[in-house]
Amino acid sequence: MPKTHVISYAALLSRVENIFKRVGVRPDSARAVARVIVDGERDNCKSHGIYRIEGCLRVLAAGKVEPDAEPEIRDLGKSVIEVDARGGFSNPAFYAAKDVLVTRARSHGIAALVIRDCLHFSALWHDVEALAEEGIASLSMCPSYSFVAPAGGKEPLLGTNPFAFGWPRQGEHPYVFDFATSVAARGEIELHRRAGKLIPEGWAVDRDGKPTTDPEAALDGAMLTFGGHKGSAISTMVELLSGAMLGEFMSKEALDFMGGTDLLPRHGALILALDPNTFAANSGRDPIAEGERLLSAIGAQGARLPSERRFTARRKAMRDGIVLSDAEMAQLDQFEATGLEAVGM
Amino acid sequence: MPKTHVISYAALLSRVENIFKRVGVRPDSARAVARVIVDGERDNCKSHGIYRIEGCLRVLAAGKVEPDAEPEIRDLGKSVIEVDARGGFSNPAFYAAKDVLVTRARSHGIAALVIRDCLHFSALWHDVEALAEEGIASLSMCPSYSFVAPAGGKEPLLGTNPFAFGWPRQGEHPYVFDFATSVAARGEIELHRRAGKLIPEGWAVDRDGKPTTDPEAALDGAMLTFGGHKGSAISTMVELLSGAMLGEFMSKEALDFMGGTDLLPRHGALILALDPNTFAANSGRDPIAEGERLLSAIGAQGARLPSERRFTARRKAMRDGIVLSDAEMAQLDQFEATGLEAVGM
Repeated sequence: MPKTHVISYAALLSRVENIFKRVGVRPDSARAVARVIVDGERDNCKSHGIYRIEGCLRVLAAGKVEPDAEPEIRDLGKSVIEVDARGGFSNPAFYAAKDVLVTRARSHGIAALVIRDCLHFSALWHDVEALAEEGIASLSMCPSYSFVAPAGGKEPLLGTNPFAFGWPRQGEHPYVFDFATSVAARGEIELHRRAGKLIPEGWAVDRDGKPTTDPEAALDGAMLTFGGHKGSAISTMVELLSGAMLGEFMSKEALDFMGGTDLLPRHGALILALDPNTFAANSGRDPIAEGERLLSAIGAQGARLPSERRFTARRKAMRDGIVLSDAEMAQLDQFEATGLEAVGM
Repeated sequence: MPKTHVISYAALLSRVENIFKRVGVRPDSARAVARVIVDGERDNCKSHGIYRIEGCLRVLAAGKVEPDAEPEIRDLGKSVIEVDARGGFSNPAFYAAKDVLVTRARSHGIAALVIRDCLHFSALWHDVEALAEEGIASLSMCPSYSFVAPAGGKEPLLGTNPFAFGWPRQGEHPYVFDFATSVAARGEIELHRRAGKLIPEGWAVDRDGKPTTDPEAALDGAMLTFGGHKGSAISTMVELLSGAMLGEFMSKEALDFMGGTDLLPRHGALILALDPNTFAANSGRDPIAEGERLLSAIGAQGARLPSERRFTARRKAMRDGIVLSDAEMAQLDQFEATGLEAVGM
C-alpha cells in the first residue's frame, strides 16, 4: 500500500496559497484559488482538488492568465452586476462581487452576476454553495471547450457545459447539484484510453458520427450530451446564456483562443441569484420549510440527494484531516520549491 | 380514410373562444385560453391542441377553476413581479403581466414573473416564444402532479415538471425548447396500456421500485426522470423554484388538492426573463448575432433544433389551414352546443 499523509485543512490551504503567491499571483487571488482547490480536495472531489494546481500553473507559465489581475466590478444598481476578471482567475472575481450580488438579490428579489474574461477551472458547486450559505438560491453555468456534438449532429461544437443549482437549507448542507451536460467527463474517456478499456455506449460518436465504444475514436470524434435531445437543448442554452448573451466566448471560441485543449479554458460565466424570502413573501409560507418537506421526502425513500457524498467526505476531512498520497505530497513540495519550473514550461 | 376538415386559424380561434365564453369564462380569459389551445393545434402539437378543451371544461364543471377570475398584478418596482391568477387559468395571468415583465427585464436586465394559484394546462413554449418575440430570453418552469420518483427512489413525488427556454433570433423563429423532465409523458404510458403494448425500459418502476415495461405496473408505480440522476436533480430544482420558493403547491400538494389526476393541476409557475442587450452591452458584441453563429453551426451539421417540427407545422397550417378529423369537428360542435353538459359532469 502506498504511504499516505494526513494534513489539516488549514495547513493544506496555506501550502496551496503559498504555491500561487510564489509564482506571482496576487495574494487575494492566491487565497481564492487555493480555497476552491482545497475545498475540492476536502470534499474528495479529486478532479477539482489539488490535481488542479498543475493545470493552473501551466496556464500561468503559458501567459494565458493574468496573475495580478484585479477584478473590476461594474454595478449600475440594476439587477445585473458585472465583474471583469480581466483575464485572471474566476474565483477572486466571484468573491469580489459576491456581497453585492447577495445584497442585490435580497433587495430586488433576483439578480444576475456576469463574470467576464476569466480563467475558469473550478467546479460550480463552490459558488452556489457560498450563495446558499447566505440564504440565496442560485443557478450557475458556463461554457467550456467544444468537445460535444449537439443531438443529431456529429461535430464537436458544444462544451461539456456545466450546470449547477444551489438551494439553502436550515441546519443542513444546501441542496446542490453541479454536473456536466455531457454524458461523461472528457477525463473519464482519457482514463479509459490509458487503461485500454472500452467506453460505455452512448458516451460518444466517432468522426463519422457513428456511435463508438473506442476511447481513441471518441476523443477524435465528439462526446454526447446526457439525456439525448433534452440534455443537448440544455447544453445549447448554457452556450447561449453564458456565452452569446454575455458577449463572451462560446466553447468553440474558447478552444480557438487557447489554441488547444492542453490549457484550462478562458471565457465568461453567469450566476442567477434568487432570494426565496422575497419570492415567497406574499404567500404566507416559509419557502425553506417548504423545500425541506420535499427534500426530506426524497431522503425518506432512500434516495440520495446530489452532493451527499461530498458532504460526507467533508465532515470526515474536517474531523480527521485530509489524506494525500506520497506522490501528491511530493508534488506539493516540488511546486513549492520550483514554482513554474515544476510544470516544465 | 376518415373524413377531414380544413379550418382557418382565425375561424378555429373564434370557435374555441366561443366555447369558453359560453360556459362563463371571462372574455379576456376565454381569448387567452383559446389562443394557447389553437396555437398548439396549429403547431400540430396535438397533446396541447383542441384535445385540451375537454380537460378545461371538466375542471370548470368540477368548480376547480374560477371562470371569472381577474388576474391581479402586484408590482413593487422590484425585479420580481407577481400576478395572482386567483384560481383562474394561467394564460390570462401571463398575458396580463407580460408587458410589465418585458419592460422590467429591459430596464433591470433580468426580471422574474411569479404566477400564483393558477390552473395550468398549457405547454410552456407558448410563453417563452411570446417573450422571445420581444427580444427577451426566458426560462419557464412549473410543478405538475407527483407521478415521478426521484433517482434512487421508488415513490411518486416529483411532477413531470416541464422546463422551457426561449432565445430570440432575428428573422427566424426563436430557439425554443420545452420538455417534461420525466422520460416520457404520462399520456404515452396510458396510450401503451390501451394499445396493449409494453413500454420501453427506463420509463418507469413498479410499486416495489423495480424497473418495469408493463404500463399497468408503471401507472401503479412511478415514472422516472430523463437523464438519470441529472434529470432528477433538474426536476427537484423545478419543485423548489416554482413550488417551494413561491410558496405555491409542489406536485404532491397539487395532486392532494385536486383529489386525483382526472383534473388538470392547479399550482404556481415561474418565468425568468433576461434581456440579452443589457447583458451584452459592455462586451461590444451583438448577443443575437453571437447566438446565430452557434445555432447555424448546429443546423450545418444536419442536427435539428428543438421546435423545428412545430414551426414547420405552423407554416403549413397558416398557409393551408388547420386539418381536423371528423371526430374532432363533431366534438367542437358538441362543446359549442351543450357546454359543460358535454363533459358529462
